[in-house]
Amino acid sequence: MKLRVVLVEPRYEGNVGAVARSMKNFGFNDLVLVRPCDIGSFGMAMAAHAKDILQSAKSVDRLEDALEGVNLIVGTTGKRLSRDHHHLRLHLRVPFLTPSELAERLRDKDGTVALLLGREDWGLTNDELMACDVLVSIPTSDEYPVMNLSHAATVLLYELGQVDSTLEIRLAGRDMLERIYESTDHLLRIINYPEHKIRYVVLMLRRIFGRAELTEREANTLLGVIKKAIWKVEGEEDQAPSE
Amino acid sequence: MKLRVVLVEPRYEGNVGAVARSMKNFGFNDLVLVRPCDIGSFGMAMAAHAKDILQSAKSVDRLEDALEGVNLIVGTTGKRLSRDHHHLRLHLRVPFLTPSELAERLRDKDGTVALLLGREDWGLTNDELMACDVLVSIPTSDEYPVMNLSHAATVLLYELGQVDSTLEIRLAGRDMLERIYESTDHLLRIINYPEHKIRYVVLMLRRIFGRAELTEREANTLLGVIKKAIWKVEGEEDQAPSE
Repeated sequence: MKLRVVLVEPRYEGNVGAVARSMKNFGFNDLVLVRPCDIGSFGMAMAAHAKDILQSAKSVDRLEDALEGVNLIVGTTGKRLSRDHHHLRLHLRVPFLTPSELAERLRDKDGTVALLLGREDWGLTNDELMACDVLVSIPTSDEYPVMNLSHAATVLLYELGQVDSTLEIRLAGRDMLERIYESTDHLLRIINYPEHKIRYVVLMLRRIFGRAELTEREANTLLGVIKKAIWKVEGEEDQAPSE
Repeated sequence: MKLRVVLVEPRYEGNVGAVARSMKNFGFNDLVLVRPCDIGSFGMAMAAHAKDILQSAKSVDRLEDALEGVNLIVGTTGKRLSRDHHHLRLHLRVPFLTPSELAERLRDKDGTVALLLGREDWGLTNDELMACDVLVSIPTSDEYPVMNLSHAATVLLYELGQVDSTLEIRLAGRDMLERIYESTDHLLRIINYPEHKIRYVVLMLRRIFGRAELTEREANTLLGVIKKAIWKVEGEEDQAPSE
């Protein structure tokens, strides 16, 4: 999927710059502006290291020109539109996708998707929304549903960004984990932990370390600590005159 | 789960206002600022209809004061920290959670979670990151990973705002966790664990238990086990003829 971000009549240059920055943060670069405000030094400053995206953004007069070569048009709209403007309801009472649902649907799809974001005050007009194939809405609080333009864009770009999040951290192997549990069992016995509770404690640790997803390094260190404790306890016992 | 957003030394009032707005968009209101910049009319303007949150935000001089009554401390950090700062690697090469993983883990948990966001230019310092139980990182493009502060906050609040508020499992309190770490430190000393590694082991445990999000019951049991081990080692030592 290729994504084109289309800002329709943005009024504040700071928002346009901020959207460009967010696009670059999530690996996108195709920005088209429909009848935008002037973009000056503040807009450029907000773009930070994404000035290249802002500078290469195309400005067009008509929305249609922004949609050239697009396979799917996604419109963004705030919750409020589904409650107010009753005469619009007929068109707008269609299932909105959440950003994550949209991402799920676009995964592994080929083609160019245009993501339309409207004016800071009004969003997209009725006509513009009707031209969209899919509507997406970010779930927000009823008390204050209206997001800043670049914030809304950021949430959508975050969901649509296919950035690889895999981190090269080696998780501990099962055999290492089993050795930790066996050693813990042993340690509990020699510190006279109540016999009938030992099984429960080991199971609890299994759960805790399971949730934590121990790395190889952490598991190694833990095993070292437990063995050192065992050694200490058993070593002292050998030296003690009597138990 | 109750969320407290903690901004550490934010430098731009516009960002602070924008974070307040985003908090209200996603239903949060507890904002604490640590040594913030001055917040004037531009910050207020960026807060839009969330001026109440900005006005009721507490300003504190020390991070510790921002963490009062908090059960879990979540630190945010850019990917770049896992590659640069090689001397930090030992501490920081732990699995970072993605925002959605964090949301998944906090689902159905009770307690107050502090979400720490650092300076616009530097993020959180090494010491601040070390004080965190869990680290979260937004997957961004390698080409330009550094997000605007309010954008990063927005992505996290968006994810956490979808957290179901049904409360079932009680997380361990901070004081209980601190007692676990203190007791572990003590145990390591008396089992003659290499002095220079003790701090690292305790930090590692903090990360592991942070990721696992210990329940009150688990923390209690763990503390009991550690104390029993200490008692055993110290008791044996008393009886031993010589060290």
